[in-house]
Amino acid sequence: MAETCIENPDYLVVNGIPSSKYKHEIELENCFEPQHENSALLILNQEIKMPKLFMKLWNRYMIKVCADGAANKLYQFCVNNNVNHNDYLPDYIVGDLDSIDENIAQFYKEKGVYVIKQTTQYSTDFKKSINLITCHFYATNFKDHLQSSNEDSNYGISLEKGIHDIYATIKNVAELPKLNVLALGGIDGRFDQTIHSITQLYTLTNTDPYIRMFFLTENDLIFIIPPDGVLLRYDAEFRKACIGNCGLLPVGLPTEIIETIGLKWDVANWPTSIESGRVSSSNRFSGHDKCYINVKDGMIINVEIKKDVVANYV
Amino acid sequence: MAETCIENPDYLVVNGIPSSKYKHEIELENCFEPQHENSALLILNQEIKMPKLFMKLWNRYMIKVCADGAANKLYQFCVNNNVNHNDYLPDYIVGDLDSIDENIAQFYKEKGVYVIKQTTQYSTDFKKSINLITCHFYATNFKDHLQSSNEDSNYGISLEKGIHDIYATIKNVAELPKLNVLALGGIDGRFDQTIHSITQLYTLTNTDPYIRMFFLTENDLIFIIPPDGVLLRYDAEFRKACIGNCGLLPVGLPTEIIETIGLKWDVANWPTSIESGRVSSSNRFSGHDKCYINVKDGMIINVEIKKDVVANYV
Repeated sequence: MAETCIENPDYLVVNGIPSSKYKHEIELENCFEPQHENSALLILNQEIKMPKLFMKLWNRYMIKVCADGAANKLYQFCVNNNVNHNDYLPDYIVGDLDSIDENIAQFYKEKGVYVIKQTTQYSTDFKKSINLITCHFYATNFKDHLQSSNEDSNYGISLEKGIHDIYATIKNVAELPKLNVLALGGIDGRFDQTIHSITQLYTLTNTDPYIRMFFLTENDLIFIIPPDGVLLRYDAEFRKACIGNCGLLPVGLPTEIIETIGLKWDVANWPTSIESGRVSSSNRFSGHDKCYINVKDGMIINVEIKKDVVANYV
Repeated sequence: MAETCIENPDYLVVNGIPSSKYKHEIELENCFEPQHENSALLILNQEIKMPKLFMKLWNRYMIKVCADGAANKLYQFCVNNNVNHNDYLPDYIVGDLDSIDENIAQFYKEKGVYVIKQTTQYSTDFKKSINLITCHFYATNFKDHLQSSNEDSNYGISLEKGIHDIYATIKNVAELPKLNVLALGGIDGRFDQTIHSITQLYTLTNTDPYIRMFFLTENDLIFIIPPDGVLLRYDAEFRKACIGNCGLLPVGLPTEIIETIGLKWDVANWPTSIESGRVSSSNRFSGHDKCYINVKDGMIINVEIKKDVVANYV
């Protein structure tokens, strides 16, 4: 079919999209308030920004995990913002522990945080954290395991890759209940690390389809739009107050945007690739409280979040 | 042929790579001191960081161009660092001029800076700047053109897309002399803008092969490794003092790393894609003063630059 691109008004009521058109629904504010579902805040090794928002998110996520040196950043965050460390104790610190400060590791251990060493170099701190989060929620007896042992023995978890081994015992991964993970950091540092984070959005879709993964930066929310149609919902007031531009980015591979409904520039049958430079960037949501996106292969979306207002709003 | 991946020692003398193996040579320090060749410093609309390095680069590039609102950032840079605006006057400011502060535009106009408006929305400020840079060096009579007219008439340049029209008159673009462009900003802001910058590395390879484009961020140098073999040279002392990790990133499309010589982890016949998560990140240069990279399709490389030492070194 012929490709099309139309410019919509800035405000558009999007209604009557039949549920047969989409296999996925994503609720944008869910990132800021993951109600009724399992959820984890994953802190990666970058300075923690947007303190007011961070403090709100902290209390809304069921568990908090620091990937290795991220614990240093959390500690420093408390110092910089003059808040009590006891109010910001993560549930877990995990990684090869080559970047966490020894004194800070000791400090958190004494406060009862599970500091779990995993030495394998065939897996990143990011992946170790993700598997740990899954084990926490879905590995039978994982918590018993932690309680029956102590940190001197690495909680009975094999030092090399015990977390991955426990993860491997979980059955029917595809059918696990939804698990929301919001990652802070991971983008905007060294560029190969940024791209590594983006690869995780793609690979988790295959290996851990129950995980709904978002990255939050100072500028954007970044996540994956899987194929088979996505209905993306947001509160109308939230859109007006907090959302800026967006981009639909073929980072993984050249592909096609089959149809969008509710963007400022809606396209259909639109081939897109980085190599050709044909990319829908500097777009935005026109849809009043939702929009519809259907892509042939998974694509990355970034949704600009106005950092100065979002903490007051959510 | 079978894929391989070997771990090298941290230091490796790479010699005897026959020139028949590579079509391209890239000299890394050239970014910091582009001698004997045409060169332009392109300032994009983000805060100017690493002031000491910026001041050195300023004097080494033949022309300086601000893309629209980048002029605000340059002005602010002078204020913040207590330096004289007269020592940091760009040659050109170009764009649709929707983000430059009116007073700042007026200030630079009065100082004799060419402030050129280009209203077309079918081209970004980045692309307008790139074409302007090419016109400056290679469009016959472009400078005469500027001198025979004044800013009230937009220097006789059609307001909509005059720069693109003049650019279109340049003949034999493929054979123009090399032109080094170092862009500051463009990465680490809104993620769709980051990806837009990356697309430019791919598209310029086709449309303007004479341009050697680099992005400099607070963390990395980012550029493209084109196919047909690249010999990447650097000063041995510079590597030790200033270079950290690197990544070879298949951002545009799944492809294959045919061969590398002189990386910490050298690979051959190695399929790579974002979607599969199989990406050579957190790698580094083992080669004493050079390494060799041969890829099937253009790939993005990032080379970590230690920002605290580089300004003293270059």
